Amino acid sequence: MSGAERLTASEAAAHLESGSLTAESLVRDCLERAEQRNAVKAWVWLDPELALSQARAADRAGRPGLLKGVPVGVKDVIDTYDMPTQHGSPVYRGNRPFADAACVALARMAGGVILGKTVTTEFANRHPRETVHPHNPAHTPGGSSSGSAAAVADFQVPVGFGTQTGGSTIRPAAFCGVIGYKPSFGEFSRVGIKMQCHNLDTLGLICRSLDDLSLMRAALLVQPRRPIDRAGSAPRIGVCRTPAWDDASPDTQALLEHTAARLSAAGAVVKDVAPAPSDILDQHRRVFEFEAARNYAWEYEVHGDKLSPALRDGLLKPGRALPLSVYIEAIENAEAFRARLDNLFGEVDLLLAPSAVGEAPEGLGSTGDARFNAIWTLAWTPCVTLPAGTGRKGLPLGIQLVGARFRDEALLDAAAWVEARLG
Amino acid sequence: MSGAERLTASEAAAHLESGSLTAESLVRDCLERAEQRNAVKAWVWLDPELALSQARAADRAGRPGLLKGVPVGVKDVIDTYDMPTQHGSPVYRGNRPFADAACVALARMAGGVILGKTVTTEFANRHPRETVHPHNPAHTPGGSSSGSAAAVADFQVPVGFGTQTGGSTIRPAAFCGVIGYKPSFGEFSRVGIKMQCHNLDTLGLICRSLDDLSLMRAALLVQPRRPIDRAGSAPRIGVCRTPAWDDASPDTQALLEHTAARLSAAGAVVKDVAPAPSDILDQHRRVFEFEAARNYAWEYEVHGDKLSPALRDGLLKPGRALPLSVYIEAIENAEAFRARLDNLFGEVDLLLAPSAVGEAPEGLGSTGDARFNAIWTLAWTPCVTLPAGTGRKGLPLGIQLVGARFRDEALLDAAAWVEARLG
Repeated sequence: MSGAERLTASEAAAHLESGSLTAESLVRDCLERAEQRNAVKAWVWLDPELALSQARAADRAGRPGLLKGVPVGVKDVIDTYDMPTQHGSPVYRGNRPFADAACVALARMAGGVILGKTVTTEFANRHPRETVHPHNPAHTPGGSSSGSAAAVADFQVPVGFGTQTGGSTIRPAAFCGVIGYKPSFGEFSRVGIKMQCHNLDTLGLICRSLDDLSLMRAALLVQPRRPIDRAGSAPRIGVCRTPAWDDASPDTQALLEHTAARLSAAGAVVKDVAPAPSDILDQHRRVFEFEAARNYAWEYEVHGDKLSPALRDGLLKPGRALPLSVYIEAIENAEAFRARLDNLFGEVDLLLAPSAVGEAPEGLGSTGDARFNAIWTLAWTPCVTLPAGTGRKGLPLGIQLVGARFRDEALLDAAAWVEARLG
Repeated sequence: MSGAERLTASEAAAHLESGSLTAESLVRDCLERAEQRNAVKAWVWLDPELALSQARAADRAGRPGLLKGVPVGVKDVIDTYDMPTQHGSPVYRGNRPFADAACVALARMAGGVILGKTVTTEFANRHPRETVHPHNPAHTPGGSSSGSAAAVADFQVPVGFGTQTGGSTIRPAAFCGVIGYKPSFGEFSRVGIKMQCHNLDTLGLICRSLDDLSLMRAALLVQPRRPIDRAGSAPRIGVCRTPAWDDASPDTQALLEHTAARLSAAGAVVKDVAPAPSDILDQHRRVFEFEAARNYAWEYEVHGDKLSPALRDGLLKPGRALPLSVYIEAIENAEAFRARLDNLFGEVDLLLAPSAVGEAPEGLGSTGDARFNAIWTLAWTPCVTLPAGTGRKGLPLGIQLVGARFRDEALLDAAAWVEARLG
């Protein structure tokens, strides 16, 4: 089989299991694609021999586990014992972690091949790096999980790890026209992932099929695989424009209205909901600033000159000045918001919301705005972005589906129902 | 000034500020005490020249910050860029972290001297190591923060970092007859601390004065120092025996009853409360097992042969088999317990509870039982243990005071009121 780089992780795993594909040939196809398309600059570290040697080992071992040799791209804020981990920052140039992050170890235990490290913005924060949009190099792929989103969208790897503290998984996935998933806060281990904000940081997944999310969840949670249930009835959907609605592009607004109408026509009960107070993004900002300023104490104090001004002066400095009482109030407000959402999910099965302000912005100076994501990061709710057509510039748009906390499987089932009706 | 090793951190900081003490002489006194008393085996890494060079630098810089050269002992699950960090496990032999943990960086930024690394049980879990009780070497000092508790109690350092996932800060502090403090979950940064359970792990402090807690809080939270208010009125106290009460030693039971009576006589409103469901420790155990099993994925898979059977077969193996649904139910039960406590703290200002089952057990085979601590770790509430006399064997006993979440300052004020009336 050639052209295996186009397979989803689930498809590849099935072929690997049946023997119609070897891990070595799959990894070779992915590496060839990555080399042909190195202008995308998705990878900060890619050692073909190291990837191939893992693939050959998987083949020799009979392609074990759930992943059976499927390659995974790992965002470079996630530790790997056999590849550098540099956090998108000169501060960590040459850093070689002692151990794998838990998610990397779990992926390897499940038979996965770590293909390489994908580009991240500086510390998964705002300061961008070199990756371009795979459909149009004049545009950002989004961030901070820039490389994972671009590599998956560009068929260089079927699945990539991202992280999200604001909008760093959902936004780049939406910009690049692929699936992004942020699980319920606290489900996936964060050991070995550079901690930015302990109340917000979430390991996410970027891929091209909902089935891959059930596959990777099983590997990362050490649970039996639970296939997505595509036979469910129409969900009750709450359309949630969020307090940032007026900032959405006309394309994005039209997409959301159109999608709500289409799903209603297909049998879903659809109603408008507005669970978030108008200042919800301020609460996210306060938690982010307070925690990041203390969590990056070493970097700020010892290597302040190597940090971007956006990080040092725009985030850490104001965060250091933030009173503890303001932080505690923000945490308490976030908890009240979560309680309101818990109640709302008695009335609806999922929320439909914008994935981003609009298409990927032009230029590489910014990876875009997180205002349609930060709200759900603070909410600790699971979210999926599904590709849903293109905007005025011909770049992808996504719609975001939000489920009840800890009801990720129900969200994935409902997302499959929605996906089948997007057309 | 000689004998400076007996000063509390706050006293030392005052002397350092006035110039009646230099950081070098203070650190030298602590190092001499540690050398005289090396039979306690509190330190896994102590390099006198490295400690003295930090102290001299503090003196040269005019003894800046809040700590002004005060030495701090750092539990060896906490990263230090200039000392090994071995997590009490042969897996991490020779590990030299790239960066300081945030708490270490914050202590240094505040003018602290990192004296050395204190002994931890294997990965801050159950498997004990070499430290002995400073009052009686036939007894355990408790754990997992064994070295920090023993060193502080033995006047080898005024303050030590501990961590608590079950009872790892409060229990050894109580056993050793010093003050232990577990802050509200989420306040102190955990960057660079080996993550065991992301819903439980808490950085704690061990010291010999409540004033040191306000000093260290200011340093670690980057906040102005707020001195303890000793002029407050008598608190409303809820006596909380917890579902483990029948397991407490007669000494411990008598101490709690006697203390409640004494505080009542001193003017406190005292009543019995029972906020915890009888299975609360099962919820803690499920969260612990599920999270630890995934968080230690790399150690389990790659270095399983170097783990103790207690960790590998007693914790990680059952944790891997635990269904996600059981974990989620435990998290939801914990959240319901926290909500119940929030309501209770409308009626009382603090809870009075046992710090441990009894005195430090004989032998080094176990560091003791965490059942009077795990409940409050799961609760995310701040706790303080205060020394309160001795038991039948002449070893220290403590009483535990528990405050409302995020009301740590009020807890410290109330603890000072209680301390003044313990006699």
